[in-house]
Amino acid sequence: MDSVKKIAILGSTGSVGRQALDVMRALSARFQVVGLAGGKNLKLLEKQIAKFQPEMFYSSVEPDFTYRGEFLPMEQIASHPDVDLVIIATSGKAGLYPTLAALKAGKTVALANKEVLVMAGEVIVHEAKSHQAQILPIDSELSAIWQCLQGEQSKPQRIFLTASGGPFYRYSQPELRKVTVEQALHHPTWKMGRKVTIDSATLLNKGLEAIEAHWLFATPLENIEILIHPQSIIHSMVEFMDGSIKAQLSFPDMRLPIQYTLCYPERLLNSELPRLDLSKIQSLSFELVEQNGFPCLKLALDAGKQGGTYPAVLCAADEIAVKLFLNKSISFSDIAKVVRETLEQHQSIVQPSLEEILAADAWAREYARNWEAG
Amino acid sequence: MDSVKKIAILGSTGSVGRQALDVMRALSARFQVVGLAGGKNLKLLEKQIAKFQPEMFYSSVEPDFTYRGEFLPMEQIASHPDVDLVIIATSGKAGLYPTLAALKAGKTVALANKEVLVMAGEVIVHEAKSHQAQILPIDSELSAIWQCLQGEQSKPQRIFLTASGGPFYRYSQPELRKVTVEQALHHPTWKMGRKVTIDSATLLNKGLEAIEAHWLFATPLENIEILIHPQSIIHSMVEFMDGSIKAQLSFPDMRLPIQYTLCYPERLLNSELPRLDLSKIQSLSFELVEQNGFPCLKLALDAGKQGGTYPAVLCAADEIAVKLFLNKSISFSDIAKVVRETLEQHQSIVQPSLEEILAADAWAREYARNWEAG
Repeated sequence: MDSVKKIAILGSTGSVGRQALDVMRALSARFQVVGLAGGKNLKLLEKQIAKFQPEMFYSSVEPDFTYRGEFLPMEQIASHPDVDLVIIATSGKAGLYPTLAALKAGKTVALANKEVLVMAGEVIVHEAKSHQAQILPIDSELSAIWQCLQGEQSKPQRIFLTASGGPFYRYSQPELRKVTVEQALHHPTWKMGRKVTIDSATLLNKGLEAIEAHWLFATPLENIEILIHPQSIIHSMVEFMDGSIKAQLSFPDMRLPIQYTLCYPERLLNSELPRLDLSKIQSLSFELVEQNGFPCLKLALDAGKQGGTYPAVLCAADEIAVKLFLNKSISFSDIAKVVRETLEQHQSIVQPSLEEILAADAWAREYARNWEAG
Repeated sequence: MDSVKKIAILGSTGSVGRQALDVMRALSARFQVVGLAGGKNLKLLEKQIAKFQPEMFYSSVEPDFTYRGEFLPMEQIASHPDVDLVIIATSGKAGLYPTLAALKAGKTVALANKEVLVMAGEVIVHEAKSHQAQILPIDSELSAIWQCLQGEQSKPQRIFLTASGGPFYRYSQPELRKVTVEQALHHPTWKMGRKVTIDSATLLNKGLEAIEAHWLFATPLENIEILIHPQSIIHSMVEFMDGSIKAQLSFPDMRLPIQYTLCYPERLLNSELPRLDLSKIQSLSFELVEQNGFPCLKLALDAGKQGGTYPAVLCAADEIAVKLFLNKSISFSDIAKVVRETLEQHQSIVQPSLEEILAADAWAREYARNWEAG
């Protein structure tokens, strides 16, 4: 008999949360959903709850439906004795405390919420080690690196993070200024949430992934290279001590890395997952990224290297800037300006506590919100 | 303190043997050469012996030099108590008995001699299991598959063996008939021995690798696909149950897979190994192989699927045919004709003993030697 894993999803109504439920429906014999936490989309949350019948649930606004399960804060769901694995599919800083609660309770954490490691990598990695809790990455690039590292004794010598380049690769500065919200939301290869899609277009997202990889795989940012790979088939690569490189490839579909974290260390057949037809791939190409063409990427990598509270400020300023862009208050190329100016005005703290990280976050949000084009 | 592995090389004067010694010279603190066996190139063998000072040696012709070490048959070197790992870098059936002797003595075998597994896969795999002896593949494609399988619990669902296509990919039949020995010996990406280079040009070599992969990784030949990948950067790929694919990439240099078998499960820095510059790779391409264009490949895969003594006959007939071509007795496209006719005339034996395999080999050599263009 195969054992049944008990899963809680925080952020179940978002893109990753919905796809995680899709995987669990397809492999229902192996998983039981014991907790679901959603944001403001109560209609969808109610549907999910009706279908999966979790024992615990949460929503960030008061629910307008009744359900027999227990309404509990996310930290309590994440650390509940009935939970084996928690999927952190929230966004922004919302995942921070639930992740810490889960790790402190020794739970396995499947992490999709980038800001958790970017804002508080040192604290998070320390807690995971202290409680022998595993952090399994959901992001396709980080999942690729993790898959390539399976069975290897040595640390990566170099990590090649691949990037599609987004919809505006090779756009000139004047062209970038005119980019509309609709254009920016149309990603060439991946279907994702709105915030991540914009971060993919600015490539700031790739900087966040590099910082995550730095913490997850104990690799200096200097050894993490970004390669533009427009086909999004190779999801990342690892180079080892002897010069051998491993790559992970698949059809670009988030359900695969989600499923891998759920099944790990097993791999299960899921007939609903599309497969790659290698013979139909004419060519895979790679190019070093021109950081000057992507100011947000450079800002992110620099913030990661400087450490302290800079990465938290990066996340906060970007979150506000993307909102301002989506509200059509600022232009696409203003996103980098907001982030840069906020970082420049910030006084960073070395080895910050979680409180100091959150204070920097609050300061940066306030600063970015009041930004006005100079 | 790192331990020192004691290594014997059978076939030390050949291409793989020389490169193995090169790796051991570069990483001399980790390896001690305890046995060297060469063929007829006594001059080179004498040099190698003088440099590495093995306690045992062998040559297939009587040595014309004196050396204080013990002159022993290859089987005795391969199974000697002082040996930790034996590199089988002989060619043709020469590696068969030494490999069996090594496995029966529980030694780790680093295998470069393709015919060992192709001719006697069932016998070899059985002996390895019975004596808990490991077979580590040296061939770059098989090494790639093996590297991709590290840390994975499940068997491959599909294996993609990559092939450069050789120098005559896309040649027409009339063009192939006119191919000269000099053209055939010029491989586009790999530097190898003469026999392997010709087998790469006919793609028969890829069929042998598929049969080896079948035995080494317990994968049906039906699940092994050949992909033409002219750049020889991705050395092979494995698809798992969930649709995830892993690939191994490196600069095409045989010293890397050789070193991996020597260091396994570790990976060591060897500054002499060239590294891949991914940013300089414009594009990687893949194509399904047109088996009709490569009759030797189809013959090899069919022989592998039929099993019995067919694969032994395939190897023997091909060895003779390649010799006839190198002697300019037959044309390049006659190689397939010799192999086909010999296979057609053979009466295969199911689950053959080693004696029956060698009898089939002897019969096929005789038959092929007497082949005359019809």
